[in-house]
Amino acid sequence: MDEFDLIHSITPHSHYHPSVDVGIGDDGAVYTASSHMQQIVCLDTMVEDVHFKSEYSTPQDIGYKALAVNISDVAAMGGIPKFYLVSLAVPSCWQKADVQAMYEGMAELAKLYRMDLIGGDTVSASGQAVITVTVIGEVEKNRACLRSSARSGDVVFVTGEIGSSAAGLSLLLGETPPSAFHTGDYFIEKHKRPVPRVQVGRFCSQLQRAALNDISDGLASELHEIAESSSVTIEIEEQLLPVHPDLPEADPQWKRWVLFGGEDYELAGTVSQQEWISLLDYCTQSGIRIAKIGAVTERKEASVLLTANDQRQIVLEKKGYNHFK
Amino acid sequence: MDEFDLIHSITPHSHYHPSVDVGIGDDGAVYTASSHMQQIVCLDTMVEDVHFKSEYSTPQDIGYKALAVNISDVAAMGGIPKFYLVSLAVPSCWQKADVQAMYEGMAELAKLYRMDLIGGDTVSASGQAVITVTVIGEVEKNRACLRSSARSGDVVFVTGEIGSSAAGLSLLLGETPPSAFHTGDYFIEKHKRPVPRVQVGRFCSQLQRAALNDISDGLASELHEIAESSSVTIEIEEQLLPVHPDLPEADPQWKRWVLFGGEDYELAGTVSQQEWISLLDYCTQSGIRIAKIGAVTERKEASVLLTANDQRQIVLEKKGYNHFK
Repeated sequence: MDEFDLIHSITPHSHYHPSVDVGIGDDGAVYTASSHMQQIVCLDTMVEDVHFKSEYSTPQDIGYKALAVNISDVAAMGGIPKFYLVSLAVPSCWQKADVQAMYEGMAELAKLYRMDLIGGDTVSASGQAVITVTVIGEVEKNRACLRSSARSGDVVFVTGEIGSSAAGLSLLLGETPPSAFHTGDYFIEKHKRPVPRVQVGRFCSQLQRAALNDISDGLASELHEIAESSSVTIEIEEQLLPVHPDLPEADPQWKRWVLFGGEDYELAGTVSQQEWISLLDYCTQSGIRIAKIGAVTERKEASVLLTANDQRQIVLEKKGYNHFK
Repeated sequence: MDEFDLIHSITPHSHYHPSVDVGIGDDGAVYTASSHMQQIVCLDTMVEDVHFKSEYSTPQDIGYKALAVNISDVAAMGGIPKFYLVSLAVPSCWQKADVQAMYEGMAELAKLYRMDLIGGDTVSASGQAVITVTVIGEVEKNRACLRSSARSGDVVFVTGEIGSSAAGLSLLLGETPPSAFHTGDYFIEKHKRPVPRVQVGRFCSQLQRAALNDISDGLASELHEIAESSSVTIEIEEQLLPVHPDLPEADPQWKRWVLFGGEDYELAGTVSQQEWISLLDYCTQSGIRIAKIGAVTERKEASVLLTANDQRQIVLEKKGYNHFK
């Protein structure tokens, strides 16, 4: 595979954003930022056999997800994703067609959000494939949705359903048998092709105040981050958690998927009770599932508390996905 | 190693740039761009055993160089480096102290340029270490130094000396014996700790017109890129190439180091004859070595021509470092 040929084949012929002054093909990309916006920069890395396996993910899937998780970070800041840059370290067994397919998986998603590929670096690796995506977005000045914005009395919410991505992963890894699910492919799709919640993030950025986090490491971990950044306690109720109806019957471990599974790339957040009404209305009208799952209270010893269905209150540990452990 | 502890230990306590609104610790970094500047974004990846070897590079060295090569890209656009984000995929044999040392190697260099670390992702890998750095810089509007700016009649120049990094690598790999050099450490330092030419890039950005490329893949390759982007031919003279006096005696392959070795991270470029005088004056006064090495001519069949010391004119192939070949 020739690097120059490859660069040529993936370089876009035009840009969605006329603010791109120099795209791929020089030492760096150059763009003009809007004067009334702030710039958001996110970076996330996926490693073969840690974050995905080539046995069950096509290069398109890998590309799609690597970009999706970064768009999700921009969504969790309340921003508009605009540009992306890709670093790809691939072992020699990858063909040029595989690399192109990975870029196609990204381009497919980028098209939906009108995002421009403005840079990248493809290098050979001897071991596993490593893909790093940098996404640049923007948000109106002082409108970013920070983790530190939760206040006592706020409503705690989550979009979509949670735990389904972890259920899909469990299926893919053979930990849960296919017979456990009526619609296994549904959960696998949830794991491989998460849909970043840009629209909800954008709505939240226009509210007076919203704390947001995207669910990459699991609901418990994300709520911990909000609670700790905001010096509050978050109390949620098990019966309010939006879970696919097949989950409880599929596996005795299903609650782990919901609370600690992660990779849902839904948004978890808090807004004032008053603004919760607007947010709920907006989502209902837009056909986006959203659920109130609890409330923010004054800071207690525990950061996150869960009221189980039997009314016992449990301290929810962070226990999200923590690399190196 | 705990990821959260690690993040805590590398998170800067303050920022050089007050334009950083949100640093490490949320889903993404947020900064405010200056309205009279354009944004520059660069991304480069270094893979263990491809771009560096742990046997001869400390984690500090690796960190330093991973940031330096990206700053060099900003320099080659004529920009001011401002922020950086780091993705690190490290095998389990790396200790927390190694990861911290790598970040220290970057911080050492970042301090010189007053750059802020605003984001990152550290993940475990089963194979070799992969480090990707994204650098964001800025340049005054329409002042970026593009590869496409060379015009017939321009002076072709290069900063510093070339080939020394490749000589250092040859020493490190044991391809050239230490006895071949009086000062082997000097060349090894050139390879491990290249100094990006930000100051020269900044001066060039204020000229009427300058084409710039940093020498990562070798002088021949960089000049090819300028010649092709600008639809011109570049003609250089062997006798004008700035080479360390020890090189010709050290190894019969020394000309390969100079023309195709790469990783010098010097700037190669073109400016009008009139502006060459100002650039030369500026560099002389600043104690920066710079040399005129040839001229830009009308487009011929060959992109780059070299007049050898015996006056033969040779077509210089691109033959720079090309991954995958």
